[in-house]
Amino acid sequence: MHICSELHFIPMADVIHELVNGQQRNDLSTQDRGLSYGHGVFETVKVVAGEPILIDEHLQRLISSCQRLKIPTDNLLQQLIADLDYLPYVDLGVVKIIVTAGVGGRGYQLPDDPRPSRIVQLFPFPHFPDNPSQQGIQARWCDIQLSSVPTLAGIKHLNRLEQVLARAEWSDPHIREGILLGSDQFIAEGTMSNIFIVKDNTLKTPDLSRYGVEGIMRNHIIKLAKQSDLSVSVLPLTKNDLLDADEVFFCNSLIEIWPLRKIAQQSFEVGAVTRSLQKALMAESYHRC
Amino acid sequence: MHICSELHFIPMADVIHELVNGQQRNDLSTQDRGLSYGHGVFETVKVVAGEPILIDEHLQRLISSCQRLKIPTDNLLQQLIADLDYLPYVDLGVVKIIVTAGVGGRGYQLPDDPRPSRIVQLFPFPHFPDNPSQQGIQARWCDIQLSSVPTLAGIKHLNRLEQVLARAEWSDPHIREGILLGSDQFIAEGTMSNIFIVKDNTLKTPDLSRYGVEGIMRNHIIKLAKQSDLSVSVLPLTKNDLLDADEVFFCNSLIEIWPLRKIAQQSFEVGAVTRSLQKALMAESYHRC
Repeated sequence: MHICSELHFIPMADVIHELVNGQQRNDLSTQDRGLSYGHGVFETVKVVAGEPILIDEHLQRLISSCQRLKIPTDNLLQQLIADLDYLPYVDLGVVKIIVTAGVGGRGYQLPDDPRPSRIVQLFPFPHFPDNPSQQGIQARWCDIQLSSVPTLAGIKHLNRLEQVLARAEWSDPHIREGILLGSDQFIAEGTMSNIFIVKDNTLKTPDLSRYGVEGIMRNHIIKLAKQSDLSVSVLPLTKNDLLDADEVFFCNSLIEIWPLRKIAQQSFEVGAVTRSLQKALMAESYHRC
Repeated sequence: MHICSELHFIPMADVIHELVNGQQRNDLSTQDRGLSYGHGVFETVKVVAGEPILIDEHLQRLISSCQRLKIPTDNLLQQLIADLDYLPYVDLGVVKIIVTAGVGGRGYQLPDDPRPSRIVQLFPFPHFPDNPSQQGIQARWCDIQLSSVPTLAGIKHLNRLEQVLARAEWSDPHIREGILLGSDQFIAEGTMSNIFIVKDNTLKTPDLSRYGVEGIMRNHIIKLAKQSDLSVSVLPLTKNDLLDADEVFFCNSLIEIWPLRKIAQQSFEVGAVTRSLQKALMAESYHRC
């Protein structure tokens, strides 16, 4: 397996454009509940030819996640759409949207009249000089296990210390992703991605009713697979299921699909199902441009 | 049992004084990892006659919590002590200290040279018009259960969605605290406090090796109890242990000790052990003034 020797950590360039509650700024009150308690949600959206990809799905997840976290959503969708209208054109970029419960006093109780904070940031698209979509990546098993919190499962919320600590477990730049198990020993997700395995031409991905983020790209890949008559199962998956798989890949809205080539001592080939899903995503991109 | 009919939620007055990284301001970068991931810790300190109470213990916990979360602590203690030196005198107040991993790009990986952010805020002390220290309080059992995350257990970190959702379970102003069980069904803590029970003159408090915040007041009460030859046990406690107790109380650095008077259908008296611990805390306060 060829592994690129370049460092994969590319420091983020400065934000290209930012709106906070509809105004051009880059700061937030120190009393915002997003900071105090992580009381908020976020979305990370790929922008191609000026268009935020799968934006309806991202905004829909954001709104329903806010509702689960008791963050009021009156006018929120319209406000976010207006914020997104102000984005300058870029060929390729990343939009990050954060919505929090807004400024509140000390104490966990929601203020009587919570007013959400909105942050919309446009970043340059990260460089991946080692072409992981084509070459595939090396991954590792993380030591830390994701706790089971059904109330929060699936939500892309701002309480991400488990992911931070998981990502801090390794510094080897050749390892591009870590796989997290849940405390029930089933596979949950990657630190920044969802996981699929392929076995006997069936696509399988972990059930996320107890932990994890229900990724927009994960759901989109499930949809694409069904459209191409590929059988898809959402179910608990063990470490052995993965090690015994024909193909394994990671996905999120930015990386789309990164095939797994190596984990611990085991190697994988990039298989036909993975390649066909990558092609299907690529075809959608062409239609957009 | 007398229950005050006044609303107990007193909206916080504006912050009296605030330093962010040693400068007078009240905002933080929207790219701070405290906001993005809850990658930080906080302390809430009572101020009496200009003196932050148990400040050495608070700062020591903050530093060791930062270390557990991979937040660099070089010079942090000296910087925080310098920040605290700028606090204006108040007879009674609350200092909130937040330390985060600082500004970082998108992505969970720590920046190569993380520079922590420090926030030191002085608030007015909250009013408790129904005198819960003397009168005792009514509490409830929360539905949400705390997940077991040994890596994060004990730390007062900024990932507090479980507490936010627990506190959102009730709006009845007569109920002043909710008790959280862990996912293992043992008692963990209150939404904003630690819990002690007294049974046959022994003080007992939950083991917090799997969840919860190891409160400064909790540890101080354990120390006070030992000094007065009261036997103390830290151990797993069940709901039945609490219901079967002679006395129950909640504690934190601000409320100090609030006796439990009623939970669901069961009533408790405020007993001699609770009162003697309150007196011991009061005596320390007098020595300070």
